[in-house]
Amino acid sequence: MTVLVDAHRAYRDELVTAGLLIPMGVDGLYGRSGAFERVVDGINAAFSAVGDPDRPEVMRFPPGIGKAQLEQSGYLKSSPQLVGTVHSFAGSDRDHRVLLDTLDKGGDWSAGQKATQVALAPAACYGVYPAIAARGRLAEAGALVDVFTWCFRHEPSIDPARMQMFRQREHVRLGTEIQALDFRRLWMERGRSLIGAFGLPFEVEVANDPFFGRTGKLLATSQREENLKFEVLVPITSRERPTACVSFNYHRDLFGRAWSIETAAGGTAHTACVGFGVERLTLALLKHHGLAIKDWPPKVRDVLGL
Amino acid sequence: MTVLVDAHRAYRDELVTAGLLIPMGVDGLYGRSGAFERVVDGINAAFSAVGDPDRPEVMRFPPGIGKAQLEQSGYLKSSPQLVGTVHSFAGSDRDHRVLLDTLDKGGDWSAGQKATQVALAPAACYGVYPAIAARGRLAEAGALVDVFTWCFRHEPSIDPARMQMFRQREHVRLGTEIQALDFRRLWMERGRSLIGAFGLPFEVEVANDPFFGRTGKLLATSQREENLKFEVLVPITSRERPTACVSFNYHRDLFGRAWSIETAAGGTAHTACVGFGVERLTLALLKHHGLAIKDWPPKVRDVLGL
Repeated sequence: MTVLVDAHRAYRDELVTAGLLIPMGVDGLYGRSGAFERVVDGINAAFSAVGDPDRPEVMRFPPGIGKAQLEQSGYLKSSPQLVGTVHSFAGSDRDHRVLLDTLDKGGDWSAGQKATQVALAPAACYGVYPAIAARGRLAEAGALVDVFTWCFRHEPSIDPARMQMFRQREHVRLGTEIQALDFRRLWMERGRSLIGAFGLPFEVEVANDPFFGRTGKLLATSQREENLKFEVLVPITSRERPTACVSFNYHRDLFGRAWSIETAAGGTAHTACVGFGVERLTLALLKHHGLAIKDWPPKVRDVLGL
Repeated sequence: MTVLVDAHRAYRDELVTAGLLIPMGVDGLYGRSGAFERVVDGINAAFSAVGDPDRPEVMRFPPGIGKAQLEQSGYLKSSPQLVGTVHSFAGSDRDHRVLLDTLDKGGDWSAGQKATQVALAPAACYGVYPAIAARGRLAEAGALVDVFTWCFRHEPSIDPARMQMFRQREHVRLGTEIQALDFRRLWMERGRSLIGAFGLPFEVEVANDPFFGRTGKLLATSQREENLKFEVLVPITSRERPTACVSFNYHRDLFGRAWSIETAAGGTAHTACVGFGVERLTLALLKHHGLAIKDWPPKVRDVLGL
């Protein structure tokens, strides 16, 4: 583990020294340079070039979702440790003086913050399900949505590829079981060829989410046994512990049930999504092709429009 | 006031019905359609066309800043009621069962959330000051930074132009008093001509931030008396109560002192920023030119690249 931690620290330091990441005093929270963002834009453009012909509906959500939406999603059951809820000050002038006094004395002023109705998005697609559900029964063709969202997961780490705030670009498919599985099969092919075109070494493996606690272990086992999640793993700081940069998820009727989404025939909808972790892919590209983007292989720059 | 509230609700309903905004169950929290985002992109492009020739350094921050950065900024003193802090679950399997039980019973499960080291960005430029401060003394020319950030302010409202999560595009100037004031003067001219080119009616007025409590009233008065803040006001839902869509801020040495930023000559740096509220401008454009972007005046579409 020490070797791995050293490798994480070394790569993070390298990225900071090169000005690609800007420290913000918290592990997993960084500003990005203009060069870093051009790569993010390039990944998004390459994703669009492949996905746009399917004519998805574009939805762009803020970094938050309604707290009630979070509750209904079931995420608190499976992964409470990653959830971020937004809290705020709701006191009087006098309470404010107490807050500032606590702050001055170095105490925990934030203990008095009250929960708002806002939570942070744990994944890019969480805004989609309630939005589609609100429209009533799906059409025969189902639905296809394109999202790009800032997500939050509370897992402070010095691994630059494990940020607390990061973006996911996704396509989300809602429809019958066959529509969901066909979508995932298609994107597993597209994903392989895109990551190959990025010039990155990778393997695709069955995976599980980092569910919480004892019940979480059972969830993880059944997720693997049923092949619900596949990931594109790319070595970034370690060959033995490669990083999941893209995931292909089949949720069965989990969100269909949570949000009462119905297929045209009146059954419970099945859903699937493909998610590109744009920060992780950017970090993988910088690792494999070097920190100077102008020196990247012309073919890779071409695919990314750089 | 009732008339104003009705106007807010009517415009919000109109935007939701047209599919431009997607409700998320919380006032001030909405998804955006692809059409809405094309306008946002157009505003950003128009801003870049004017500002890029100054060769700003591009920084892109996540929606959060370090809690310690928030503390050091002084924002908790002036506007605690708007602050969002991020809290998370940090308990055991047993605590998790209690949380789920509370959730099942409709109780306040989020009261047990613990503060993390992350707060939400109250304005786009808050990441800039510590990043520049960390580099040591400024060069003779000072610094100029381009940011575009998701911000959070806890002020739930049915006014679609008062969102809890929204984006600001800013240029931030750090240097001597003269450099800061020259920058602001330049952008006040540029701002007028850009908003004019957007085909929007507007006026520029001296303004103040919505500071908290009794001390806040004094802060607001002195901010106005010293002409520290000007705003471009555009009527959206009301002619009598137009909406601030762009602001031009001179902070004197407020952030220079908070972050110990030094000019080349060793004095405390002065700072200024220009901030474009991209959601508010989008809502103003949709109000004045109509919800169908293809029918907007050709000159306006041209400026926005639409």
